[in-house]
Amino acid sequence: MIGYGFMGASHSQGWRTAPRVFGLPADVEMAVVVGRNATAVAEAAAKWGWAESATDWREVIARDDIDIVDIVTPGDSHAEIAIAALKAGKHVLVEKPLANTVAEAEAMVDAAAAAAADGIRAMVGFTYRRLPAVTFLRDLIAAGKVGTVQQVRAAYRQDWLVDPETPLAWRLQKEHAGSGALGDIGAHIIDMVQFVTGLGVTAVTGTMETIVKQRPLLGEGSGLSGTAGEGYGDVTVDDLAIFTGRLDGGALASFEASRFATGRKNALTIEISGDRGALAFDLENLNAIQYYDRTAPAGLQGFTNILVTEPEHPYVAAWWPAGHILGWEHGFSHQVKDLVEGIVDGTDPHSTFAEGLTVQRVLDAVETSSENGSTWTSVPIGS
Amino acid sequence: MIGYGFMGASHSQGWRTAPRVFGLPADVEMAVVVGRNATAVAEAAAKWGWAESATDWREVIARDDIDIVDIVTPGDSHAEIAIAALKAGKHVLVEKPLANTVAEAEAMVDAAAAAAADGIRAMVGFTYRRLPAVTFLRDLIAAGKVGTVQQVRAAYRQDWLVDPETPLAWRLQKEHAGSGALGDIGAHIIDMVQFVTGLGVTAVTGTMETIVKQRPLLGEGSGLSGTAGEGYGDVTVDDLAIFTGRLDGGALASFEASRFATGRKNALTIEISGDRGALAFDLENLNAIQYYDRTAPAGLQGFTNILVTEPEHPYVAAWWPAGHILGWEHGFSHQVKDLVEGIVDGTDPHSTFAEGLTVQRVLDAVETSSENGSTWTSVPIGS
Amino acid sequence: MIGYGFMGASHSQGWRTAPRVFGLPADVEMAVVVGRNATAVAEAAAKWGWAESATDWREVIARDDIDIVDIVTPGDSHAEIAIAALKAGKHVLVEKPLANTVAEAEAMVDAAAAAAADGIRAMVGFTYRRLPAVTFLRDLIAAGKVGTVQQVRAAYRQDWLVDPETPLAWRLQKEHAGSGALGDIGAHIIDMVQFVTGLGVTAVTGTMETIVKQRPLLGEGSGLSGTAGEGYGDVTVDDLAIFTGRLDGGALASFEASRFATGRKNALTIEISGDRGALAFDLENLNAIQYYDRTAPAGLQGFTNILVTEPEHPYVAAWWPAGHILGWEHGFSHQVKDLVEGIVDGTDPHSTFAEGLTVQRVLDAVETSSENGSTWTSVPIGS
Amino acid sequence: MIGYGFMGASHSQGWRTAPRVFGLPADVEMAVVVGRNATAVAEAAAKWGWAESATDWREVIARDDIDIVDIVTPGDSHAEIAIAALKAGKHVLVEKPLANTVAEAEAMVDAAAAAAADGIRAMVGFTYRRLPAVTFLRDLIAAGKVGTVQQVRAAYRQDWLVDPETPLAWRLQKEHAGSGALGDIGAHIIDMVQFVTGLGVTAVTGTMETIVKQRPLLGEGSGLSGTAGEGYGDVTVDDLAIFTGRLDGGALASFEASRFATGRKNALTIEISGDRGALAFDLENLNAIQYYDRTAPAGLQGFTNILVTEPEHPYVAAWWPAGHILGWEHGFSHQVKDLVEGIVDGTDPHSTFAEGLTVQRVLDAVETSSENGSTWTSVPIGS
Repeated sequence: MIGYGFMGASHSQGWRTAPRVFGLPADVEMAVVVGRNATAVAEAAAKWGWAESATDWREVIARDDIDIVDIVTPGDSHAEIAIAALKAGKHVLVEKPLANTVAEAEAMVDAAAAAAADGIRAMVGFTYRRLPAVTFLRDLIAAGKVGTVQQVRAAYRQDWLVDPETPLAWRLQKEHAGSGALGDIGAHIIDMVQFVTGLGVTAVTGTMETIVKQRPLLGEGSGLSGTAGEGYGDVTVDDLAIFTGRLDGGALASFEASRFATGRKNALTIEISGDRGALAFDLENLNAIQYYDRTAPAGLQGFTNILVTEPEHPYVAAWWPAGHILGWEHGFSHQVKDLVEGIVDGTDPHSTFAEGLTVQRVLDAVETSSENGSTWTSVPIGS
Repeated sequence: MIGYGFMGASHSQGWRTAPRVFGLPADVEMAVVVGRNATAVAEAAAKWGWAESATDWREVIARDDIDIVDIVTPGDSHAEIAIAALKAGKHVLVEKPLANTVAEAEAMVDAAAAAAADGIRAMVGFTYRRLPAVTFLRDLIAAGKVGTVQQVRAAYRQDWLVDPETPLAWRLQKEHAGSGALGDIGAHIIDMVQFVTGLGVTAVTGTMETIVKQRPLLGEGSGLSGTAGEGYGDVTVDDLAIFTGRLDGGALASFEASRFATGRKNALTIEISGDRGALAFDLENLNAIQYYDRTAPAGLQGFTNILVTEPEHPYVAAWWPAGHILGWEHGFSHQVKDLVEGIVDGTDPHSTFAEGLTVQRVLDAVETSSENGSTWTSVPIGS
Repeated sequence: MIGYGFMGASHSQGWRTAPRVFGLPADVEMAVVVGRNATAVAEAAAKWGWAESATDWREVIARDDIDIVDIVTPGDSHAEIAIAALKAGKHVLVEKPLANTVAEAEAMVDAAAAAAADGIRAMVGFTYRRLPAVTFLRDLIAAGKVGTVQQVRAAYRQDWLVDPETPLAWRLQKEHAGSGALGDIGAHIIDMVQFVTGLGVTAVTGTMETIVKQRPLLGEGSGLSGTAGEGYGDVTVDDLAIFTGRLDGGALASFEASRFATGRKNALTIEISGDRGALAFDLENLNAIQYYDRTAPAGLQGFTNILVTEPEHPYVAAWWPAGHILGWEHGFSHQVKDLVEGIVDGTDPHSTFAEGLTVQRVLDAVETSSENGSTWTSVPIGS
Repeated sequence: MIGYGFMGASHSQGWRTAPRVFGLPADVEMAVVVGRNATAVAEAAAKWGWAESATDWREVIARDDIDIVDIVTPGDSHAEIAIAALKAGKHVLVEKPLANTVAEAEAMVDAAAAAAADGIRAMVGFTYRRLPAVTFLRDLIAAGKVGTVQQVRAAYRQDWLVDPETPLAWRLQKEHAGSGALGDIGAHIIDMVQFVTGLGVTAVTGTMETIVKQRPLLGEGSGLSGTAGEGYGDVTVDDLAIFTGRLDGGALASFEASRFATGRKNALTIEISGDRGALAFDLENLNAIQYYDRTAPAGLQGFTNILVTEPEHPYVAAWWPAGHILGWEHGFSHQVKDLVEGIVDGTDPHSTFAEGLTVQRVLDAVETSSENGSTWTSVPIGS
């Protein structure tokens, strides 16, 4: 595993847990975690249960005893590491977003395609897909429960930037983070809409907004260009992105990604409306979905709160009895399960790098639209 | 009262009930209801408790014993009747929208201004303002409970057009209805956002969409140009409008007006986010608001579900004890109360014709934006 | 109408509104309201729209122009007035509870039976039965949607006595009120359980509790024996009653009636569980029911939130479109509708005096059980 | 670890995860899991990550390299194993209930007291106490947020026995299971009420009920006396227990434990009402609590939905960011953390065997009351 931040902890929990719950078709050993700070990465390895730590990812990638490389570094290093790992014949899992730019993402798709010829798997970690409720949404839509999708409504709302004295961290600087709410949490809802409906976003109109335009600098010790020093510096990414997408087949989907939704902590909500029914989901209540069946008898229609904790539901049978809820982190175990099974079976588990590229292109088109007075902007198709 | 459709029933309930609950400063007599079909309007008058019925609104307006004219006809006749009534020295209540066009609305504002000089009151019936919960939202925002408004999210979602065999009624023809979801229910959320925040919409970017483009004609007997005959005819208004507005002071507000939100019956939802708190409301649960207080102690913050049924809440003291909920119709009684009190006091009750005009201009700007690739479009200010 | 308190206002709203909404088979005139204080009752008559007021109910009952007597006085006068009115050949509506004692209730049942032979109708006003959602619960259970009832859970929780300085009003004195939470709000849930399931309560075990045992006296002017004077006096009724009932067929039903449920304003909740499904209802959200269908496919089961505002639902077609919610008071209009239709049709509308008597007997058995260490106590059957 | 059923999987997840999340003050090694079936227990050990498996718990308890014995066998063997382990100088964790009888529980309390003199710790695993929301409830009540507790309402409702063809498993036979819903899930709510309020149950009145009285036998192969064979056999434990308890200080608490609450999967709900506020919790939504503050300004009171996922909340800081929810299983990791810290610190982590005994005595008193016509029955105090 390359990287050891918050996502390092989450991925470690997945690697540690999946084999103990699912009975995987191959043994998983947590070999080595890589980071620049030798002391800190050694502590992380010890705490999380990795056998070793290291500081040079290139050396680790070159080792024969390493089969899978899990990349949880910031987005600007994804392309370099992933391409090198694929070329070294390692299966690769990359945390989302696939990359910070469309060009990088395209290069990664090419590298994954070349590696696939040799039976090497590449996967981008849109983990929310593997929450049982979200996989179940996809299954229900595929089974025709909403009929033709006519409208989609998606939002991902957090509030950790409402305080104007929150300092100017690297996530708020375009040179480091690429974009703000759009790329960080907007990417999740774009992927989720495409995943559950099976429909791509073909064009967008959008508006990006920086609500608090200057924030306190972190001080000299921060070590980041643009954020060190005294006083206030400019926020150069978006706090809020509101956009509308056209889906394959013509339906409109509204999107909102906000770090200024006061009181909303991790409120990813999605609702898919069709001519036979509707489905809704809320990440703050992630063990349930809401299902409206338009084919039910008149007078008995309504949104049904389905607790997605039954053995019939995806991934659930390996866990606990009905009504015993899972947490946010369980998606990481499911991701490990599917990746390992894909490697053994020789099939590509979703989401592929090509799918990650489509998200990158939508993000790019939203930025272009926002810079051009919110005019409708096409999303390129194909590799 | 001119008109006797669904809104006629609602307004009649308001006129009948308000004096029995609030103890108004003037006696209210339900004198005459006017409609084109003599038999039908006589039946309506008898059922709803009006003393008389009539077929010529001009004659009624001319009567000395009439003080207030309540206009609940379709929007295309609002301007003519309201201007005539104001000129005849009658106080006027007009059901929303103020008119079908900006030009008509401007003429009505001028007429109201002229009449005001003679102590004549004019009011447009954005009834939802007078639900206790909505008035309370306004009061809380005015008292600083959300601080500076940073983001607003508003939607009005219904689903009565999801069935593609729903026929081509006049509401689906531009020549009769002006617009579709936008003007009918979008108008409500524009007004509510402006009312509760006290901030005007200054520019918009929007997209309007007709999802089902042809519907069954009503048959020869329908009597409406464009909708009679056999087979299918074109739907010429929007089923769905998604737009984003810029508010005074710079905050963004997202809006959605949909008749295709499967399973949502009358789901007007609004959420106002600021640097001190947030407030949310849902019309399907109209006796409550949700309040998030960012100034509460860490660890104790959350959305508080306030049942707006206490004597401290607007309009409630005259009704029932705490927890005894009010219905959708009660706004009509509150509207009568405020209008009658305004007439007696010689003050203009909101919402004024000038306020109604601002809504009309926002609707107009959304249409313009939608026709121009969703580019940002300014909303004119001032009369 | 005899009486003019809070229930007088509610009943007046029903008498005033029902004819305007439902098109009743007979004209209804609001003739006279009766009370002891001539000035106050005259004001009430004027405000609520009654033609006259009077102070002697015996004189009013004797009048030929009076057809229906609506009794909204405190429970200790119900028997005397109702029996006199029935003997005078008037149709009678009595607000719940039917009476304060089983003996009075039995006498009223006898009087109603005698009057019925002459085509005179008697009805006790368990108004909550006529909320559309509650009537719909009964219909669904009768249609087999929950199958065999196996368990019932009912509670009515308010919190207006939590403040220990709330004074010693007559409702807190046994000699005036009969009982406390049990008779006031416990009666509602007993009736509702029996009504929606169609099953009688045959035996009970219960505990009654006075949480705050002394409260401030009202002062010399209160005029009520036992409550006047300075200092504190004893509360002689229950604040809280918890009891369990055995239903016909053997199912257990749990009941709680509390005036000490902090934060609960008017929280009547009921849940009926059976071998084919379950149904739940909450009076603070009275336009909806929750329905769980055990016969739905595995994986798709859950509680469906049915908004009871569709034309297919009881009483709703005469009101507003789907999603336009009704309030607490609408049951009073529905009660008037059913009573007037019953009088015209010559049939007895529920709830009959005999049904009211069964509630009285259950209340009596709960008191007996509580006084006897909560041992199981039978409820007598039959008249 | 002795035992390897469902609770074995849960406890293993706790032992595996706690050291990786919390940084414990001592290393934890998962040494050996013990079960009667050598093959099955070896598979469990391999899957869950235990170093060894064994079939004789006495041998394992005798080993010098074992410090902690975790007992997850059925309740009837708890006493024997726990007492032996304590005598052998091992720290002991016992899954709830402490034992199947009061006598066994008393013997265990004595053994724990004796062992404590030698620095040996004993803990009973009422895991729900260590859900962040439940610990937070206790903290808020201890801090006076509800004031004096005046009323408590607790229920634990499941529905897995609604199907009458669910076979006669050992859990439905008194000789194997001790009791039914009462001992299995009723024990949880008794403990939770006592834990969060700090008040003991001093007396009870209760009713136990077997709703489906005969169920299909499991067949000859089942190996359990009383359940094998063809046809139907008697269910000898309760499906439903409804009881009311008196708490120290006088407040009443209502309890319901049901396996027949159709549609309720794991619905442990609790509400504590006091003179300053109220708190509520639902296990199916275990990352949140509801808090009503009676000291908030009039008009602003309501139940606040507090998402218990902030760093200020118990146990949460070691996990994920705000809004990233935890699952049912996380309590097992917290239990391991507190036990290991208690061992290192030389302090007894709750819940002690003495606390487990109080639950056992309440269960026993409910059975006694139910057998005696539901009369009030005292709960003995002290060891």
